[in-house]
Amino acid sequence: MATAATARLILFVALVTGSSGSAWAAQKKEDVAAAPAIHALRPMVGSGGDLGVSCDSWRLAVEANNKRNWKTVPASCEDYVGHYMLGKQYRRDSAAVVDEAVAYAEGLELAGNGTEVWVFDIDETSLSSLPYYAKHGFGTKLYNATSFNEYVLEGSALVLPETQRLFRKLISLGIKPVFLTGRTEDKRAITVANLCHQGYSGWMELLLKPVGFKGTAIAYKSGERLKLQDAGYIIVGNMGDQWSDILGVPEGGRTFKLPDPLYYIG
Amino acid sequence: MATAATARLILFVALVTGSSGSAWAAQKKEDVAAAPAIHALRPMVGSGGDLGVSCDSWRLAVEANNKRNWKTVPASCEDYVGHYMLGKQYRRDSAAVVDEAVAYAEGLELAGNGTEVWVFDIDETSLSSLPYYAKHGFGTKLYNATSFNEYVLEGSALVLPETQRLFRKLISLGIKPVFLTGRTEDKRAITVANLCHQGYSGWMELLLKPVGFKGTAIAYKSGERLKLQDAGYIIVGNMGDQWSDILGVPEGGRTFKLPDPLYYIG
Repeated sequence: MATAATARLILFVALVTGSSGSAWAAQKKEDVAAAPAIHALRPMVGSGGDLGVSCDSWRLAVEANNKRNWKTVPASCEDYVGHYMLGKQYRRDSAAVVDEAVAYAEGLELAGNGTEVWVFDIDETSLSSLPYYAKHGFGTKLYNATSFNEYVLEGSALVLPETQRLFRKLISLGIKPVFLTGRTEDKRAITVANLCHQGYSGWMELLLKPVGFKGTAIAYKSGERLKLQDAGYIIVGNMGDQWSDILGVPEGGRTFKLPDPLYYIG
Repeated sequence: MATAATARLILFVALVTGSSGSAWAAQKKEDVAAAPAIHALRPMVGSGGDLGVSCDSWRLAVEANNKRNWKTVPASCEDYVGHYMLGKQYRRDSAAVVDEAVAYAEGLELAGNGTEVWVFDIDETSLSSLPYYAKHGFGTKLYNATSFNEYVLEGSALVLPETQRLFRKLISLGIKPVFLTGRTEDKRAITVANLCHQGYSGWMELLLKPVGFKGTAIAYKSGERLKLQDAGYIIVGNMGDQWSDILGVPEGGRTFKLPDPLYYIG
């Protein structure tokens, strides 16, 4: 990781200072048009340069649904993920998604009869488990259902403020929020308390998974969305931090994938 | 952008040096477990901090299909996109996707009768138009069909070496590559020549869009994939740089989204 960090350091030093102290920084846009730099894309032979593990690339592959079924964050990316989550970038990335969602919602023509709903996942979408993951290696350790459930039962998960901004905007527009979570039905009371305590109110439904449900997250969640649709609701939006939150028919009018480099649910 | 760059500079300086010269860097993991830092996620009021346009967040939103139907790269991100494309990160991000694809392909159990195929888009998937975009503002200018078609007809697009690595691996495994492109049929000869010249050979089919085709990219491409399926082929993989390359039934056994911050095709 030091190599990647060093390369990025040089990158950002160059960005900030406009320094031409490196070959990279010396490539002004006008020179680029003359195109010799393009040859950086030629096949690399031998040792292959420094295309080693890049936590940036790993995270992007996760977010674009290229990297699937992973059990843990690569050990070498623990600090990277921690810094990402605790620094401003996670917040900024979340804000960019919510900005899109707000613009989309504001542009909708509503039927005016209150049938439009918006589906929200809970963990890492509406509430943050970051305090838990900060104590448990930022995703580098195998998921421990016992200790995570203990955390959930504390009811102390924190608001994700960008999502809450969208949630409130939707209510003001007349679109009804529905929570749809992989948390099981036996956690209803603590989940309601946690959501309320963190400033959420006015949701239409809170759908929790039946205890003992067999099947994938996609099967469960798309099945619940189908029930909403069959009940006459129009799912105009669908937001989650996992692709399994938002894939599966019916997806809803539009899906929004919030960042989550901490864990994967298939 | 300077503000974002400065913040990231501080971030990476801290990463590299382990400096505790900033409040951020002083947050050691052990301290984090004690959790005060989590409060950075609390709602911001007033001026809202420095959550302005972040080209990093913009690119992530594009790659995760949150940002859609955009016409141009934000003007303020021209340098960012140029640096991304010409530097090592684009290559690294592409390599991470291809690594996943190779691992997936190697893990497949093939029928042994040559029915498995893998669909590749061409522009920004198999061949790179980067020399064109480097001369035209890295996506910050509106798409100009005339000048881009002139570029295509030069037949000078460059190989994307990570994709070619996958392409060759698939052939060695007995999976047949199929090119499926939004380029129109009248560009068949120059497209074949360009692909050959850049080291591609051994594809099963090259499917180009009929001249005058009306309909979306998703409709065209999923329709062609359906024809392949109806002809008895099993689409085990599907790779493109646009979500419209890979969404739409049938998607194929697994989809792979290569990075492309230059343009959007809906």
